[in-house]
Amino acid sequence: MARSIQSLERAAAVLRLLAGGERRLGLSDMASALGLAKGTTHGLIRTLQQEGFVEQDGNTGKYTLGAELLRLGNSYLDVHELRARALVWTDDLARSSGESVYLGVLHQQGVLIVHHVFRPDDSRQVLEVGAMQPLHSTALGKVLCAYDPVAHSEAFDEARGAFTDRTVTGAEQFESVLEATRARGWASDVEETWEGLASVAAPVHDRRRMPVGAVGITGAVERVCEEADTLRPRVVAAVRDCARAVSRDLGSGLSAPARA
Amino acid sequence: MARSIQSLERAAAVLRLLAGGERRLGLSDMASALGLAKGTTHGLIRTLQQEGFVEQDGNTGKYTLGAELLRLGNSYLDVHELRARALVWTDDLARSSGESVYLGVLHQQGVLIVHHVFRPDDSRQVLEVGAMQPLHSTALGKVLCAYDPVAHSEAFDEARGAFTDRTVTGAEQFESVLEATRARGWASDVEETWEGLASVAAPVHDRRRMPVGAVGITGAVERVCEEADTLRPRVVAAVRDCARAVSRDLGSGLSAPARA
Repeated sequence: MARSIQSLERAAAVLRLLAGGERRLGLSDMASALGLAKGTTHGLIRTLQQEGFVEQDGNTGKYTLGAELLRLGNSYLDVHELRARALVWTDDLARSSGESVYLGVLHQQGVLIVHHVFRPDDSRQVLEVGAMQPLHSTALGKVLCAYDPVAHSEAFDEARGAFTDRTVTGAEQFESVLEATRARGWASDVEETWEGLASVAAPVHDRRRMPVGAVGITGAVERVCEEADTLRPRVVAAVRDCARAVSRDLGSGLSAPARA
Repeated sequence: MARSIQSLERAAAVLRLLAGGERRLGLSDMASALGLAKGTTHGLIRTLQQEGFVEQDGNTGKYTLGAELLRLGNSYLDVHELRARALVWTDDLARSSGESVYLGVLHQQGVLIVHHVFRPDDSRQVLEVGAMQPLHSTALGKVLCAYDPVAHSEAFDEARGAFTDRTVTGAEQFESVLEATRARGWASDVEETWEGLASVAAPVHDRRRMPVGAVGITGAVERVCEEADTLRPRVVAAVRDCARAVSRDLGSGLSAPARA
């Protein structure tokens, strides 16, 4: 049993390696990055290739992630209850706010985007489903850290890097941000992750009153903020309405007593 | 080495099982579906869960696919050269045709959708990236079978099921469909997969003149077809223009001599 677990862990490490940084790697590069013998690495890759998790470029001989991962990722979304319940409400939020809408869940040390509704205009936009956002600087991430203890410890265990001049990186300051988030029930990110962009997000709770995700919008600061970097109340209200509607659909009744 | 390969193959079987049919399974169901001992299955699942490939529902104890698959599937798309080259051209095709655009590649026994541009209207549409389409009845699938020998044998090895009254299932008839596809350079599907929908698709070739995918549109028969189920020439031309543009961007020069 121990042996089989080790080979699975190593296979997962191969996939993580191919998902980050270089993304097209030769056998030797992978073996040395993983600290494994070339023969061992080749055995892993050969099986991963057989199963469609890894592909080899015919020209360069380098390896990339395989198509089976896309198929399985799509199947993951198909049974995602939070996403299914949020589809209609996030569409409405995009329409009412005029901005891009994101639904995120905690995954590893970040926010995994499980649904993305394009800004309702004719501009060219790139789908970000499956992308990761940082926990400590984004509105979605702050909401998760404020309400989910697991997200909270992930954010405090990790180094909190500065993406712009405004990113809050200090532990104490970050803790006050989270306290403020809990006090008002929503989080914001005004150019703390991306220059020129502001976000607002609110928590989604399930029938057990557990924080299962966050929903929010992201748009140009000029549209989303008023003077002095204050978020427009209309936008905040629309985001919180959406989060409440999704929570209600997940069975988190507002009239039910809070858990002890 | 043989041991580690076996555990990987079994882990892949666990994921395939969770991706098809029921999608929320208990340990006993999975063990019996895989023909493995419960202890062995549990060892696989525990490791897959550790790595984020499998999740367990807190309420029911049942297992589903995990979020790491979505993250990896997104990384797969990020390095997908065909998709990257096709982004602008498929947007243009959606605009000029007024219909939904799909880019597909051969994966296992079907067409894997790697890019999907929504029909440019305000209707609610569900993203189908990561979904699979059948090889023998869809326009994308027929194009792949006509130009890619691997797709061809997959389609002939598999049972070709009838989705509607119009699905071509017989081997000889299907071979003539593929000959006609090669002769005219594009394929169609008029209610052979979905009632009320028609599709047109054309092949994309890379710098080695290899068929690497297919691009096409799908829409209501009333819009896409003229009388007597004939595809509108304007739509066919737009699809073929798009396929040629993507092929050219992949380095498949039309002026270069064909391979011997």
